[in-house]
Formats: sequence, C-alpha cells, structure tokens
Amino acid sequence: MLNFKYSIPTEIFFGKGQISSLPAELLRYGKRVLVVYGGGSIRRTGLYDTIAALLRGAGISYWELGGVEPNPRIDSVRAGAAICKKESVDAVLAVGGGSSIDCAKAVAAAAEYDGDAWDLVLDAGKIKDVLPIAAVLTIAATGSEMDRIAVISNPRTNQKLATSHDGLRPRFAVLDPVYTYTVPKRQTASGTADIFSHVLESYFVKTPGVFLQKRLCEALLKTCLHFGTVALNEPEDYDARANLMWASSLAINDLIAYGTERRWTVHPIEHVLSAHYDITHGIGLAVLTPNWMRFVCKTPENLPYFAEYGINVWALDGSLPAEQLAERSIRKTEGFFESLGLPKRLRDLGMPADLLEQMAGEAAHGGTVGGFQPLNRQDVLEILKMSY
Amino acid sequence: MLNFKYSIPTEIFFGKGQISSLPAELLRYGKRVLVVYGGGSIRRTGLYDTIAALLRGAGISYWELGGVEPNPRIDSVRAGAAICKKESVDAVLAVGGGSSIDCAKAVAAAAEYDGDAWDLVLDAGKIKDVLPIAAVLTIAATGSEMDRIAVISNPRTNQKLATSHDGLRPRFAVLDPVYTYTVPKRQTASGTADIFSHVLESYFVKTPGVFLQKRLCEALLKTCLHFGTVALNEPEDYDARANLMWASSLAINDLIAYGTERRWTVHPIEHVLSAHYDITHGIGLAVLTPNWMRFVCKTPENLPYFAEYGINVWALDGSLPAEQLAERSIRKTEGFFESLGLPKRLRDLGMPADLLEQMAGEAAHGGTVGGFQPLNRQDVLEILKMSY
Repeated sequence: MLNFKYSIPTEIFFGKGQISSLPAELLRYGKRVLVVYGGGSIRRTGLYDTIAALLRGAGISYWELGGVEPNPRIDSVRAGAAICKKESVDAVLAVGGGSSIDCAKAVAAAAEYDGDAWDLVLDAGKIKDVLPIAAVLTIAATGSEMDRIAVISNPRTNQKLATSHDGLRPRFAVLDPVYTYTVPKRQTASGTADIFSHVLESYFVKTPGVFLQKRLCEALLKTCLHFGTVALNEPEDYDARANLMWASSLAINDLIAYGTERRWTVHPIEHVLSAHYDITHGIGLAVLTPNWMRFVCKTPENLPYFAEYGINVWALDGSLPAEQLAERSIRKTEGFFESLGLPKRLRDLGMPADLLEQMAGEAAHGGTVGGFQPLNRQDVLEILKMSY
Repeated sequence: MLNFKYSIPTEIFFGKGQISSLPAELLRYGKRVLVVYGGGSIRRTGLYDTIAALLRGAGISYWELGGVEPNPRIDSVRAGAAICKKESVDAVLAVGGGSSIDCAKAVAAAAEYDGDAWDLVLDAGKIKDVLPIAAVLTIAATGSEMDRIAVISNPRTNQKLATSHDGLRPRFAVLDPVYTYTVPKRQTASGTADIFSHVLESYFVKTPGVFLQKRLCEALLKTCLHFGTVALNEPEDYDARANLMWASSLAINDLIAYGTERRWTVHPIEHVLSAHYDITHGIGLAVLTPNWMRFVCKTPENLPYFAEYGINVWALDGSLPAEQLAERSIRKTEGFFESLGLPKRLRDLGMPADLLEQMAGEAAHGGTVGGFQPLNRQDVLEILKMSY
C-alpha cells in the first residue's frame, strides 16, 4: 500500500427533502451566489423554482449561468467567471449533473484568477484561491459532487481536459435520489456505466497490498450491477436510485483509490473521443472498456487481476483457469453494458472512422497512457479499432 | 436507505514516515500543545523522543498527560483539562491507541467547559466548544482516530460510557503502520476483534435498501479475516498492518453506517463488563459476539441476515438452508476469534459470575439495548450466561 493523505471535507446532505438544508449551508459562505445549470430539465421538474424560492426566502441574491453544455465548454466558464467578478459573488452553486458541477468548479477557480480560465485547465498549478462551491445533484454519474476534478472542453483546440485541485471539492452537496427519478433511460444507463468505469479504473491497479481498497471497489461494482437495470425499469425505485447516487460519489471521491497508484486509462482515451465528437461520456466508456480489457488480457501477467474480478464481482467459479475467468468476466462486463441498453460500438454513435489514428496519438500524447498497462499510440489505435 | 448527513473532516496522513507532517499540521492550531499518552511503550519504541524532537524543532511548547489507563478514567480527563486551562493550551495531541485518543477527546471538550468533565460524558449535549484534537496512532483497534466518540470510565460509579459529538473528531491523525509492529500479540488480536465487531454492529441492521453499506461492511470484514492472523504471525508484515490500520478507521468513522439505523448491541453490553472488571474491550467483544449471534438466531426472522453474512463473508454454499448458514457462520466467527488466540469464555478472563444479573440490568438500563433485535434484561442475562 502506498502512502496517502486522506482529505474529503465535502459534506453531503443525502436523502429525501434535503434541499431544505441549502439556504443555511450557503449562508455560511455569503449572500451572493452564482447558480450554474444546464438545459431545461430543472425548470421542467420544478427544482429551479424550489431553489429560487429557497434562496429568495433566505435573502440570498443570485445570478445565473444556464445552458451549460453536456461537455461543458471553456466559453461558459469564462462567462460565469465574468459574472462572479462583476457581481462580487461569494459562492458558486451548481444544480444538475457532472457537466454543471464541473463548469461551476472551473468558474469558481477562474473567478479568483486574473488570466484566462483555460490556463487553469491546462495547468492546475495555476489554481490558487477558489470560491466556495456547492452542488445540488440531479443525476448519478460523474461523482463530481464530491471530487476534486473538473473536465472542461475547448472546441477550438478539440481538447477535453481534466484539471484537479483540492479547492475544487464542493464544500457541500445535496443528494436527493428523488431528483433522479426523471432522468431519461439513456442518461441513467450511461451514468451507471460512468460509475462502473470509475471504479474499474481504481480496481485495475498493480499496487501490492491494497486488499482493502479492492474489496471497497467490489462493493461499488456490485452495487452498480444490482441496481443498474432496476433503475432503468423502475425509475422511481428509491433504493435503486439512492444506492446508485451514493455509489457515484464514493466511486471517485478518492476513498477507493487512496494507497493505490492512480493513472487512469479508459477515461483519458474517452476524453479524446468526446472532445472530437461530443459523445456522451458514459457511453464512450461502455464501448471502450471491454475492448481495453481484451487488449490488456493478451498479456498473461494481467490475467490474475481479471480472474480476481471474475470471481469476486461476477461470482465465477474460481476453479476455472485464469484465462477463462478473464474471458468470461469481460463478456459479463460487456453484457452488463448491453443490459443497460448502451451501444456496443463507436460506429453506432455516428462517429466516423477517419480520425482514429489522430485520436490514438492524442490519447498517448507522444508517450503512453494509463498505469495498469501503459498503452502507446499503437495500442490505443488497436483498442479504438476493436471498438469501432 | 435513511437520510443522512455525511461529514468526515478528519485528515489522515497514512504511511511510513508520515510523522514528519506532525509539526506543520499542529501549527495550524497553535504553539501550545498537551500531549496525552498511556504507558511506557511510546518511550520504549522511541516514538516519544521523535515527537518531542519534532515539537521542539518547530517551536511548539508542550505539556504532558501520561499514564492514561487502558479504560481511560475520568480523573485523567480532569487532570488533562486542568493543564489545558492553566497553560492556555491550543490543541490536544494523543499518542497511542483508543484509550489515549478517547482521553484526549474528553480533555479537549472539558478544557472548554466550566463544570465537571463527567457532565460531558453523561450528557453530550453539554459539549459546546472543543479544543482541536490530533492523534498519532500506534494500534489498529478502536478507530477513535477518525470518529466522534469518546468512551470514559468512572470507577467510583462503575460506569463506562460513550459520549459523542462532531467536535470530538480529530482534526488530523498520523497513521503509520510501522508503529504497530511492536504491538503485543494479545493486543493485536483484540484490536482486530474490535474492528471486526465495529463492522458487525453496522452490518446487522434491518434498514431496508442499504445494499451498498452492507457490501462496504463485507469489504472490511474480509480485510480482518485476510490479515488478522498474518499480523499475529508476521508482526512486521507492512501490508497486513496497513490494511488493518486503515480498516480500523473506516470501521467506525460513520462511512459504513450512514443511511442505516444505528443502535449497537454488543458494545454497550461489553462496556458494562469492562466498567466492572476493566477487561480488554476487544476480548470482551470476541467472547460476547458469537453468543449474541446465537441468541438472536433463535428468532427465525433474523436468519436471512446471517445467511447473507455466511454467503458473502464466509463464502458458504448459498444453497444451504438459512438455519445451517447461520449456524455455520456463527461457528466460523467463533473460530476466527479462536484463531487470533482470544479467550472463548468470560470465566477465562478471571471474572467472577456474581454480578451477571446486575450487569444485565445495567446494560438494558430499564428497557432494551440494541437495534437489530432489542434485548431486555433477561435476554442480556442469557447472553452473559452463554458467554460465561
């Protein structure tokens, strides 16, 4: 096990009706708030009105940055930071999913920075002060509500990059599973795939002695398996929505990764795809993951990790040879994503094949990507071709 | 799943050599520190000298409260609080295990309270301000380094009571598994039994829909099973010590209990025993737990919980009837404690049988104890007799 510093100060108000905590918690940071949100769903569901009434009732002034893109763009960040500076905003409140929260994080950092916001995405070392960030979560997926990461896209440069800083962790978040009842099937499914993939990135590590961490990962993986299709078929099943929502936070708030080597593989590759084609992150992950697994399982020394996965997560018969366990666990993984109704191939996402080589190069950026088995440009290209 | 507020602000510096973080972290709270510790082990191992040198090197003045009892007594708390008041101490640093940390917590609360320290144990509602608390952990057991609980004994009244308050969570703790290399076998074993028991108290709950929480519990239980005897037989196995140490914190920092009903059973019963006979907490738990299990398994509706335990933790054959799964899982649990070299019966602890009835009454305190199956005085007496 590696040394680590555990620090997860985000407070979570979890459960039905927890939105009532919002005004008092916000007032700890000030009375001037920028509200960041995406499309019209929070208006349709009434959540926007609920929050507006709560803020007004508490004497909190607020400004708005609406229409944040599914892959939030740097121009939105710039616009939000400009409002914060002009209006001397005290805190930034995201209402929505990972896109709104990531945008709010970048806004909160850019509001305290003199240069251009994109600098902070290219170089997290430039992030110093950050306005307090809060979130009201409406979809279980990215875990941004409890982590220190923001992923921002720059359409001009075709880049989708993650920046990471302790100050980007929300001070608090409201997680009411009821808000996820109205999430459409496809978003519910891709959210579950995103959670599952976050856990796999932490699970497939070669750090010796991280037994506890691996068992925690399995706990979250099993939760996705147990509730993934329930949430699709019974969208108002509270326990399914609650378990997935809480899993989304724990999957990426660092808990399962402390003490392990942390170099992700499938996520950075997917980021290149969605930078070019604006595809849904969770769907891209679901397509790439089984093919990444197949690729790394060509290396015999990787098989025991997949055998462990097959036995502990998929309850496969431990007496089978490692090769068969790996093969079956990959088929099971693929079958899980299929059971969620997610596409199996990149071609099904309407993505042309002409940029595969270029994207492979961008993912490997002149070296390798990933920690479990570092992949060079050629490796990534093979995975992209397998996925196409 | 029940509503909950997640808040675990304690920072953990985990791993070899992390003691170097101590001075800078303490200086965030001030330059006057009370150091609380137990017997002579930290002097023998050199940890005392290391910490003294670090504090002096950082210009931190410190006072000492040494000789804290294994079941820390209210008189020690009073003595510590008096030093804090007299010397205007800024922070309280515990060096040791749960006893030193629990004592330091109560000292930190009593230092900010005008009345007698025992008031704060009898009524946590009287705790208002608390001096910042820090800990350097030397044994994996109680999890006090990351939780909001202090257990204090009053020999005059034969009471051993837990008090609980958000302010009692340490601001930070240093967890270096190497410090636990020198923990004697019996303490290592009872520490593991304590961790295991903490998790069981959270695992055996009847709250519906807490799937994720149960899987997290199983992760920690398996960690105890995997490393319990390794740590005994190879006391300098870093990964065994590291996994147990991290499990000790996660077992009781609330992570696995959020969203569940929380009324413990075996712990409060054990507290009555050790209030009267000053026995080692983990050993008392190891004796009582299998008998508590046997007692509650007489109620058929409890059997499915033990069947789940048997299948998921002990890898028992799921096709067996629930009754057999329960019986076998209890035998396995008992066998685990035996494999750690722990006594099986209260009589082996040199405890006379004359107070069983009185202690049963104190545990049930005129009503019932526990949440999984509330136990009245007669039930507790039966468990004590089974355990004797």
